[in-house]
Amino acid sequence: MVNALPLGDSNSLVVTYADIAAAAERLQGKAHHTPVMTSTTVDRLTQSQVFFKCENFQRIGAFKFRGAYNAMAQLSPEQRERGVLAFSSGNHAQAIALSGQLLNIPTTIFMPEDAPAVKLAATRGYGAEIVLFDRATQSREELGHQVAQERGLTLIPPYDHPQVIAGQGTTAKELIAEVGPLDFLLVCCGGGGLLSGCAIAAHTLSPGCQIIGVEPKLADDATRSFHSRTLQTVHNPNTIADGARTPYLGKYTFPLVLHYVHDMVTVSEAAILRTMFFLWERLKLVVEPTGALAAAALLEGVVSAPGARVGVIISGGNVDLKQAAKLFAKASRLSKPLPPIPWARELS
Amino acid sequence: MVNALPLGDSNSLVVTYADIAAAAERLQGKAHHTPVMTSTTVDRLTQSQVFFKCENFQRIGAFKFRGAYNAMAQLSPEQRERGVLAFSSGNHAQAIALSGQLLNIPTTIFMPEDAPAVKLAATRGYGAEIVLFDRATQSREELGHQVAQERGLTLIPPYDHPQVIAGQGTTAKELIAEVGPLDFLLVCCGGGGLLSGCAIAAHTLSPGCQIIGVEPKLADDATRSFHSRTLQTVHNPNTIADGARTPYLGKYTFPLVLHYVHDMVTVSEAAILRTMFFLWERLKLVVEPTGALAAAALLEGVVSAPGARVGVIISGGNVDLKQAAKLFAKASRLSKPLPPIPWARELS
Repeated sequence: MVNALPLGDSNSLVVTYADIAAAAERLQGKAHHTPVMTSTTVDRLTQSQVFFKCENFQRIGAFKFRGAYNAMAQLSPEQRERGVLAFSSGNHAQAIALSGQLLNIPTTIFMPEDAPAVKLAATRGYGAEIVLFDRATQSREELGHQVAQERGLTLIPPYDHPQVIAGQGTTAKELIAEVGPLDFLLVCCGGGGLLSGCAIAAHTLSPGCQIIGVEPKLADDATRSFHSRTLQTVHNPNTIADGARTPYLGKYTFPLVLHYVHDMVTVSEAAILRTMFFLWERLKLVVEPTGALAAAALLEGVVSAPGARVGVIISGGNVDLKQAAKLFAKASRLSKPLPPIPWARELS
Repeated sequence: MVNALPLGDSNSLVVTYADIAAAAERLQGKAHHTPVMTSTTVDRLTQSQVFFKCENFQRIGAFKFRGAYNAMAQLSPEQRERGVLAFSSGNHAQAIALSGQLLNIPTTIFMPEDAPAVKLAATRGYGAEIVLFDRATQSREELGHQVAQERGLTLIPPYDHPQVIAGQGTTAKELIAEVGPLDFLLVCCGGGGLLSGCAIAAHTLSPGCQIIGVEPKLADDATRSFHSRTLQTVHNPNTIADGARTPYLGKYTFPLVLHYVHDMVTVSEAAILRTMFFLWERLKLVVEPTGALAAAALLEGVVSAPGARVGVIISGGNVDLKQAAKLFAKASRLSKPLPPIPWARELS
């Protein structure tokens, strides 16, 4: 069931299950062991047995803490003393900042000037130094590499890093350890760190499990890359799933995705919104748009798995309520002209 | 530490820990064993170790399922065949309807004509027969008793019923079994079913624990009853915590509250709103206004317990998002002229 190796040989598969098991030990007592939620309503609607792994309850509100901490915990004493650098306006920024606080490593985060004030404050609250840049005129990569070199900082990228990938893989490891083998595992995909890490874990712990990556239709680079077996890109896709706006898979994640993932699918913006608020209203879970991607594939019938045991990863819950209120208004406006949800009749 | 017995002798204390233990066995595999959540942010802000028992994840979205199921599971074969009657426009209605579906008992629910369509649909969805009445011109008690007598139905009240109280007490039993002894247990109070049940459980399982009931200031009948040791009432209080609009404690719950509860406190409407959205945004929990009452007492500094182990019951999460969006707008308008939250400086 596993695809033939692309892009050279097995040397390109830099992360193994042993790395994930080691990451799990490092994260013991540091990351939350997040709950797995079930819902009789969801099971009835999908005709499956569904297990939601709720990383919205992870520290900093998203799975990103796992990878950041796992990478930073392995730095040498010298690297720790000099500090870590990251680029991010989102969950990775907070993950790096909190890991730095816990490990006593100074952190510098490059954030765009127009990042939401609440995210700047949260990241600064964990003790990170914030460096603002103008994304219209400055390249964060250039700036960052320059600062990293000047100050001797270690750059921790948000997904394309073996120890980050191994950390994210502990999510699926925990899920399968708790609920047992799965027939399907649905995971959202931005840069592919969570997807590839979880795919490696599931491949070892639940060998029959089909791993399916889920992207927004508007940011379908990984899906196109997967099916064409050639790296594809997107530029500033206008999806509400901000965690999936990443322009391309990485040099580590792409081969891992090709090797361990069984299929990639996409969901519409309307499907993401509907699913997000369904999870809020019915499951009582505050989920961010990206966090609803995997669930959307199942609840909207893109993936249909009657009778199967299905793991669904809810990747995060960092949405500010002002933005959510706007999205809710948008969802309400959208709900009329759209085709009905496959199971809408059952609910009426 | 337990108050002297009021209103006669110990015969007025109709529920014992043994009833709660028996209820827990009946609920095994029927009710969800809801997760306990912790938050390093909350612990830091309150200087306590806080354990949130999340009944918003209970079946039907609130603790009410426990009491309804426990009461209905003990009906005789004749009573089951004739069926059950309840009055409720809220969580009790859905709890009775779902319990009826699971136990194969027909249910009839009296709901006011102006109940939200979504609640009518949800209750009907569990197979209950809905009888609408005009609350301006008809007394639901009179109507209900008439119908109950005509059809031989058994009336299950929402809180003032020994087996309902015993069922609700399983909430605290589960919490203490999972996290160990507590110094404080904070529980919201409407009619006192959840509060008295949980107080009995904590009294046995965590003998040093101080049990504190929390009401809205606008619906403070139980607090006044507790302090005056005489039953007090409120009429149609205009609190957003709709589960706490109950006009008075019951003939079973009042003696139990006086005997087992250590203190009663109240929180403002602004405190309820702020806490509710704090729980949404920071803990990623969708909580209804009543569900935020107990947490509000702690987060707003009404109860201060530095160094203590504090259990907080989140009673439910049934709020529709349209209403929540309105409440959020209200909270945003309120936030300026109000006195700052005690820990606001720490967050800025």
